[in-house]
Amino acid sequence: VDQPHNLQSPLSISNLHVCIVGLGLMGASLAMALRDHAAQITGVARRAETAREAAARGMVAAATTDFAAGVAPADVVVLAAPVRTIIAQLRTLSGTFKPGSIITDLGSTKTEIVAAMNDLPLSVFAVGSHPMCGKEVTGLDAAERDLYRGKRWILTRTARTDDHALEVIKSLAESTGAVTLELDPARHDLLLAFASHLPYSLSVALVTATEQASLNDPTVWKVTASGFRDTSRVAASDVTMMLDILLTNACAVTNAIRDFQFSLDQLTALLERRDETGLRAYLTAAADARKRNGGHW
Amino acid sequence: VDQPHNLQSPLSISNLHVCIVGLGLMGASLAMALRDHAAQITGVARRAETAREAAARGMVAAATTDFAAGVAPADVVVLAAPVRTIIAQLRTLSGTFKPGSIITDLGSTKTEIVAAMNDLPLSVFAVGSHPMCGKEVTGLDAAERDLYRGKRWILTRTARTDDHALEVIKSLAESTGAVTLELDPARHDLLLAFASHLPYSLSVALVTATEQASLNDPTVWKVTASGFRDTSRVAASDVTMMLDILLTNACAVTNAIRDFQFSLDQLTALLERRDETGLRAYLTAAADARKRNGGHW
Repeated sequence: VDQPHNLQSPLSISNLHVCIVGLGLMGASLAMALRDHAAQITGVARRAETAREAAARGMVAAATTDFAAGVAPADVVVLAAPVRTIIAQLRTLSGTFKPGSIITDLGSTKTEIVAAMNDLPLSVFAVGSHPMCGKEVTGLDAAERDLYRGKRWILTRTARTDDHALEVIKSLAESTGAVTLELDPARHDLLLAFASHLPYSLSVALVTATEQASLNDPTVWKVTASGFRDTSRVAASDVTMMLDILLTNACAVTNAIRDFQFSLDQLTALLERRDETGLRAYLTAAADARKRNGGHW
Repeated sequence: VDQPHNLQSPLSISNLHVCIVGLGLMGASLAMALRDHAAQITGVARRAETAREAAARGMVAAATTDFAAGVAPADVVVLAAPVRTIIAQLRTLSGTFKPGSIITDLGSTKTEIVAAMNDLPLSVFAVGSHPMCGKEVTGLDAAERDLYRGKRWILTRTARTDDHALEVIKSLAESTGAVTLELDPARHDLLLAFASHLPYSLSVALVTATEQASLNDPTVWKVTASGFRDTSRVAASDVTMMLDILLTNACAVTNAIRDFQFSLDQLTALLERRDETGLRAYLTAAADARKRNGGHW
């Protein structure tokens, strides 16, 4: 009877103090999503104005720009920044985390983050997280309570993960309405190279090639329609976030680009030799695969 | 006072009989959009059931499967089929069009269609059309009155175009709420290779490469999110329609693919040598170009 809550629901976050480090779109949305689930939510932001705004709007109970003071009392620390910033924070805040606390992150690549988590003191726990809910807008103003609802949230074990720590972070993720999936970090990064970093690279190269073509004839931008709009949408993603993703997953991304180029070369060859039968089979297989795998989002 | 309507509004379609050949998504939607604007709208469909349905739903005043009988009395004939079907119809129906009538089409490439229009008898007029309002769904059931509203509708002159014919088709296009732009056929096809056929080719090759990767690890389809969904959307387009587009614009498309590959090679090289400054500049330029040119849709 001393800890009734703990006994009834040992793996919920309802008795835990969660500190979110970084109050941009992802961090601020997470604070809103966890509001009715965690015992206390506090925030840390780089800019004083962001910390003030998050507290003033009631997104967090309190917010500070003092990273060490902010994370020290927390039971769960969520690092919500671009990947290389997360890696730097894991190093600089390493001695500050409360013994027994659980550290997680919202970074889009996992191998390098998990390596940094493996170097944390033995007194803390760590679980890698990747909730897949990108948008082209950024910042606290774009935050929304339901950003994570129905989205995929990938969890990765680290050398600092035990079953309890994994279950706590899984419970945190599920509190937001996200659907969790456990993957090891290398497999995560290889699969995400295809599912996310390759589409981004193609979008960026498409916009770059079209911008080059527009130097000859600016009218090209007047005849882009919904197909171009959707194919190029992710090219407008936050550059710092995407730069960190590409640089921390460079091998898997360049491998995926090479595989893609093989596919594009096949298509080009069929078209160059006007192979109608082969081209129809190629296009039909792709259309079928897209329709068959359209239900996972 | 004999022809008051004609005198007051010589370039409207309000006194004209429009026959739409092909009652799929594009043709049936056009019939619905023109309903309050043309004097009479009739339809021609390959399948008897489609003709019956279109008439039963009041999309057209009458519909037939007899192509020659359908187009013979019309003042304006709109060919609404895949590109190579349009080209074949221009040949087979060539002697059937009423003297003085105006032929147009809804095809997505223009060079080969305009060449076929140039071979029409001197007694008829012809204007190439390309309304840009694709969807991944097809058929009469998907038709909607507002499909063309606010969309770009490109017009191309042919050897059978005079100012009057151009103005009539422009008036028809604007009746649907579309925004017209005149381009010559070669320029149209070159620009559309970048704006539409290249994005389609990339989507198809992306899905093909991901399908290949899924043979090693099917989990890849579980971690695709909104970025992949949007980048791959057009890969599910109607295969016959896209096959005709690629085969009637093969040179411009393969040239655009080569330009794209140059851009992707640049990105890959920057990533392979971990050139952070160069990579940031490349990604920033693409994000800026995408944001700057996001208003044309």
